[in-house]
Amino acid sequence: MASLQDIAVAAGINGLSALMFLMVFAMLRLQPINDRVYFPKWYLKGIRANPVTSGNAVSKFVNLDADMYLKFWKWMPAALNMPEPELIDHAGLDSAVYIRIYLLGLKIFVPIAILAFAVLVPVNWTNDTLETINNLTYSSIDKLSISNVPAGSARFWVHIGMSYIFSFWTCYSLYEEYKIVANMRLKFLAGEGRRPDQYTVLVRNVPPDPDESVTEHIEHFFCVNHPDHYLTHQVVYDANLLTTVVNNIRSMQNRITYYQNKYERNPTKRPTTKTGLLGIFGETVDAIDYYRAEIEKLLKEEAAEREKVINDPTYIIPAAFVSFKSRWGAAVCAQTTQSSNPTIWLTEWAPEPRDVYWDNLAIPYVKLTIRRLLMAVALFFLVFFFMVPISIVQSMANIEGIEKVFPFLKPVIREDTVKSFVQGFLPGIALKLFLIVLPTILMTMSKIEGLTSMSSLERKSAAKYHFFLLVNVFLGSIITGTAFQQLHKFLHQSATEIPKTVGVSIPMKATFFITYIMVDGWSGIAAEIVRLSPLVVFHLKNTFLVKTEKDREEAMNAGSLTFAESEPRIQLYFLLGLVYSTVTPILLPFIVVFFAFAYVVFRHQIINVYDQKYESGATFWPDVHRRIIIALIISQLLLMGLLSTKKATKSTPLLTLLPFLTVWFHLFCKGRFNSAFTEFPLQDAMVKDTLEKATEPNFNLKAYLEEAYVHPLFKAAELDRRISLNDEENNPLVATKRNAATGSKYPSNEGSPKQVPLD
Amino acid sequence: MASLQDIAVAAGINGLSALMFLMVFAMLRLQPINDRVYFPKWYLKGIRANPVTSGNAVSKFVNLDADMYLKFWKWMPAALNMPEPELIDHAGLDSAVYIRIYLLGLKIFVPIAILAFAVLVPVNWTNDTLETINNLTYSSIDKLSISNVPAGSARFWVHIGMSYIFSFWTCYSLYEEYKIVANMRLKFLAGEGRRPDQYTVLVRNVPPDPDESVTEHIEHFFCVNHPDHYLTHQVVYDANLLTTVVNNIRSMQNRITYYQNKYERNPTKRPTTKTGLLGIFGETVDAIDYYRAEIEKLLKEEAAEREKVINDPTYIIPAAFVSFKSRWGAAVCAQTTQSSNPTIWLTEWAPEPRDVYWDNLAIPYVKLTIRRLLMAVALFFLVFFFMVPISIVQSMANIEGIEKVFPFLKPVIREDTVKSFVQGFLPGIALKLFLIVLPTILMTMSKIEGLTSMSSLERKSAAKYHFFLLVNVFLGSIITGTAFQQLHKFLHQSATEIPKTVGVSIPMKATFFITYIMVDGWSGIAAEIVRLSPLVVFHLKNTFLVKTEKDREEAMNAGSLTFAESEPRIQLYFLLGLVYSTVTPILLPFIVVFFAFAYVVFRHQIINVYDQKYESGATFWPDVHRRIIIALIISQLLLMGLLSTKKATKSTPLLTLLPFLTVWFHLFCKGRFNSAFTEFPLQDAMVKDTLEKATEPNFNLKAYLEEAYVHPLFKAAELDRRISLNDEENNPLVATKRNAATGSKYPSNEGSPKQVPLD
Repeated sequence: MASLQDIAVAAGINGLSALMFLMVFAMLRLQPINDRVYFPKWYLKGIRANPVTSGNAVSKFVNLDADMYLKFWKWMPAALNMPEPELIDHAGLDSAVYIRIYLLGLKIFVPIAILAFAVLVPVNWTNDTLETINNLTYSSIDKLSISNVPAGSARFWVHIGMSYIFSFWTCYSLYEEYKIVANMRLKFLAGEGRRPDQYTVLVRNVPPDPDESVTEHIEHFFCVNHPDHYLTHQVVYDANLLTTVVNNIRSMQNRITYYQNKYERNPTKRPTTKTGLLGIFGETVDAIDYYRAEIEKLLKEEAAEREKVINDPTYIIPAAFVSFKSRWGAAVCAQTTQSSNPTIWLTEWAPEPRDVYWDNLAIPYVKLTIRRLLMAVALFFLVFFFMVPISIVQSMANIEGIEKVFPFLKPVIREDTVKSFVQGFLPGIALKLFLIVLPTILMTMSKIEGLTSMSSLERKSAAKYHFFLLVNVFLGSIITGTAFQQLHKFLHQSATEIPKTVGVSIPMKATFFITYIMVDGWSGIAAEIVRLSPLVVFHLKNTFLVKTEKDREEAMNAGSLTFAESEPRIQLYFLLGLVYSTVTPILLPFIVVFFAFAYVVFRHQIINVYDQKYESGATFWPDVHRRIIIALIISQLLLMGLLSTKKATKSTPLLTLLPFLTVWFHLFCKGRFNSAFTEFPLQDAMVKDTLEKATEPNFNLKAYLEEAYVHPLFKAAELDRRISLNDEENNPLVATKRNAATGSKYPSNEGSPKQVPLD
Repeated sequence: MASLQDIAVAAGINGLSALMFLMVFAMLRLQPINDRVYFPKWYLKGIRANPVTSGNAVSKFVNLDADMYLKFWKWMPAALNMPEPELIDHAGLDSAVYIRIYLLGLKIFVPIAILAFAVLVPVNWTNDTLETINNLTYSSIDKLSISNVPAGSARFWVHIGMSYIFSFWTCYSLYEEYKIVANMRLKFLAGEGRRPDQYTVLVRNVPPDPDESVTEHIEHFFCVNHPDHYLTHQVVYDANLLTTVVNNIRSMQNRITYYQNKYERNPTKRPTTKTGLLGIFGETVDAIDYYRAEIEKLLKEEAAEREKVINDPTYIIPAAFVSFKSRWGAAVCAQTTQSSNPTIWLTEWAPEPRDVYWDNLAIPYVKLTIRRLLMAVALFFLVFFFMVPISIVQSMANIEGIEKVFPFLKPVIREDTVKSFVQGFLPGIALKLFLIVLPTILMTMSKIEGLTSMSSLERKSAAKYHFFLLVNVFLGSIITGTAFQQLHKFLHQSATEIPKTVGVSIPMKATFFITYIMVDGWSGIAAEIVRLSPLVVFHLKNTFLVKTEKDREEAMNAGSLTFAESEPRIQLYFLLGLVYSTVTPILLPFIVVFFAFAYVVFRHQIINVYDQKYESGATFWPDVHRRIIIALIISQLLLMGLLSTKKATKSTPLLTLLPFLTVWFHLFCKGRFNSAFTEFPLQDAMVKDTLEKATEPNFNLKAYLEEAYVHPLFKAAELDRRISLNDEENNPLVATKRNAATGSKYPSNEGSPKQVPLD
């Protein structure tokens, strides 16, 4: 058990390391050479084309203005200054709502922390339970926690009362926030300009018809069943093979650029490569000629495949994007059942064109349910048995295992330093590697489940990750043993015993979690802002691959908010805050600092760095809400468990009411707000339709929608045509403060034209 | 433990008592005087007006045809003869699907019983576990059960295999049945003639508008948001007070008829009554004059109230029935969200006019969620603490208690016979009374929850009753102690311990449940067909109240299938059958006999007796399906519990897979079929609309719909006008075998015109 002093020291160290990161960031961001790493968003939006320099030759790379170094903290107020409506315009609603999660954390925990320090800390402190037990080593942290209250004390009434107050306050904050976010979303949707997805419905599981092709069948079906509203549709091609070919071409092009740069720098020697694996084995050839020939070959292959995809009817999958004459018509089609067989003609709102996950559009209904079942089973095993494969890897990753597989390494690893490194670090690295790969694994699982949009994939992965963190990080830190051992134990314990087992260990783990918050939260967030890996990658690319301005834009990796990965981690902080609010209030200030710091950092990042891949309009909020409710209920149950071991038999039953009220509150909120995130009300659709008809009576909607949902690969040739969101720029909703400089676009990985958000 | 012989004797006794009931029924039904008790449906349908008699004066009351007595069993083949399509026409889809529950029972349990007897009985019988334990008394029933297999035996593999086979067979039957019922429903909906509810949507929570009245607001909203489809609407009046007045008038009219009949039989003496409570206290007056004056007064009151309801805008509640020009338009409105605030402008399919529960139309959203919370809590207490008030009543209902409250009864109850009666029976009667009243309590709770149709009320009450039976009858019989004691015990047991505790007692309770099946199932069903209480009530009414033919029709109480009460009871048999299928297969034949017998009896009843109050188109099937799935999962868990006490450690883990597969099967079926019971596909709507437009281009839909959803009290004056379903009779879908005789109608309790189903 650490004392208050130990904690203070740790806080100092972590605070310093965070400060150091911030200083490094402040230095690096001021160098013009790093401008594209720290301000990529402005480049992507076409507002900035070149770093602001003082004209000097050196100053193109290094900032020499000493004044600017003194104001290194200036980015913080700058990040906070942008008002929310402008932020939504600038970064999109998804990002603006995402940082509200941190704000919600502040809203919930600042009053709770104040109240806990005013009431609970004195109540806990003024006991002497721990002092009277002589043979117990305790720390001052424990003196502040519930452990210091003697068993059976009447003071537990205070804790129960506080638990009620904290729960009510959390629910109130959640309710208010849900209301705000729902309104923001509705306003956002209402304020949006014309977008193809407003008119379009994704139709899946089109039944096969012996007499008609898929496209005829779809046209006939919707002409008959939505006669006044059907406009056009776009069939979906199976372009998976084509995607592989195109990706190969891209990689070849990168290599050719690399060798050309090399040749230009050193024109005396033509670079060579080998034809075999990884350019290491095989015949030596002239690299530029070789890759040029390879590309030639691939381009032919691509053209043939492209031809085949478009002309061969077997490449058409039984799904389509059906567009309607009005938003009203699309809203109707998306929200109703089409056929008496509910497994065919499935309709749902089309995701934004950028948001479509093309590979999953063709999965039939029965396969979907089986895939879901398999993934549920897989998730169970992943969460509860993830230690098994890691242990196997760890057991192989010892000296003897390596010697067996790679006998030629024997002399090297027999050396003492290498040996101790292998034995000491490899097992840890195996686990670390797994944890780094985990989000990718979860995302793959979500993809197998058959979701059709990137945003839903991210949401599903986040749910899986949340479950994993809950079991393996939260419970895993509190109780010893693997997740499966815990599960086994829980199955053999009574329902009332489980919260007791967990609850009783809660106060003892407070110091551990405080350290966790400081390392993972404070320093982690500070490291995020330095963007070390994009910094390195950009400079590498810039040196070896960049020739034109376009290449430089491609080399810029703006990144984006990784919802699937970060949101579950934030939830861990909510959980810790709520669980410890009544038990060890000293933990709360650390949580508050985390939320405040993360809020500033991420506000800065979404303004200057991140470039969202899609815009879902904050559809993730119900998930965030639900998970905080789960955290709240866990905290209530654990408090019940803890108190029942403290012989507070009279007061504990009072707590049983709380989880039920919380569940009811959740259901109430769900009924009240959820539909704003899943449905599009007809009233709003009608308002927009009417307005549009009045202002632009002659707009050619069909031409507008015709190519909106073409597979990105078939748009690759038309990179410069801005199809999707052109007119939004002509109708800016909020007056912009900045003047758009030379507009520049960069092609996305899949070759689709990027949307330029409003500024 | 009863031996096989004991069971055989009990079966003989119960079989005989059932047979006796059947004989009595066969006698009574042949008497012309009872014709209206046993064949009310034919009267209500207007096919029969008078009993078929041989013309003789005596034979108007007693059947003298000896031949007919010999063929007393003839009703059984007659009941089975009617083909299903005709049955649907005759009795409605609800009834036709309801008896399919019994058929499903047969489909599931006949093959299971055969297989269990072929495989499990020999496997169990050929052990000698019970014989080798000397000091144990066991019966031959136990020799047939799983108890006879020694602990740790490899034979348990057979039980596990059978459990898999039984589960798969049950799921297969359920799937097939779900498919059949879904198709029946779709065919029924597609085949139906024009009905007002096909065009109508119930709109609730109309927001208040300062400038417009409710009716204007509704009209404007739908004219704007459904411009091409909105036709008309009907506001809803708060007529609860008026209902009370009208009911009072009805009761007065009954009394006046009674006294008039009395006076006619004995014209020398004018009947008198007293003005006070229940006609016992107060001033003596001439009864006929008194009640005539009372009615006069009430009629005036009614007229005033009626005037007020129609003219006073405060009597209009913020809900309405909105009708559309086409089924397509209504389907669209019912399935979409109207407003961005999901708690206003709530739309759902309008129930059939007869099915509307008028009192609940005005409840606002927030109140609804609070009511639901309160009712959930109430249900919990009702199920787990229902013994508390009963014990209180029982403790008061003893000799001393009665003496205290009614001192004048002292001399009577001091007598020995009376005393023993009071002490012996009163506590039992208190419990019995509660069980009789229970369905009414549950229905009241469902009404408080705020459901808007009779059919959904019945479904919700059934769910509550099912829960009650599961806890208090099934678990209550297996484990001793009150429901709350069980709950308390379960909460303090581990998740794996609970199935063990219950499972281990399962084989010992086989005899008890066999007896239960015979008494409640066999004899109960046989008693149902005799209709003792309607028989007595009809003859009483016929003697005292009936003057005209119309009165006689009113006196006829056809009754109806009480879904809320009977369906949960059937589920108990499914549960028993599934639980005992692998444990004590000897129970299965009793279940099979029950299902077969009940099928015949209820088929007879729905053909000849019951008159359904509404037609929901078998919307209850998903509930039936879900509950059988619950029974299946319970049976699997209990088998797991039982086997794990039998030291079958190797084989038991195999069973854990089964509940998961079953849950997945349920989700699959839900996705595959559920929407057929909740949504109306646009394709079907369009087909019907198109057909109708082609065949009846000039039909005046507005006039047809104008009064369809008028509160029944405002239709009371127009009893003879058949509004709702007229045209169905003009377009019979199946050629009728019978000729309609003098059509006759009877007014329902609420005064709405009764629908005449097709024949």
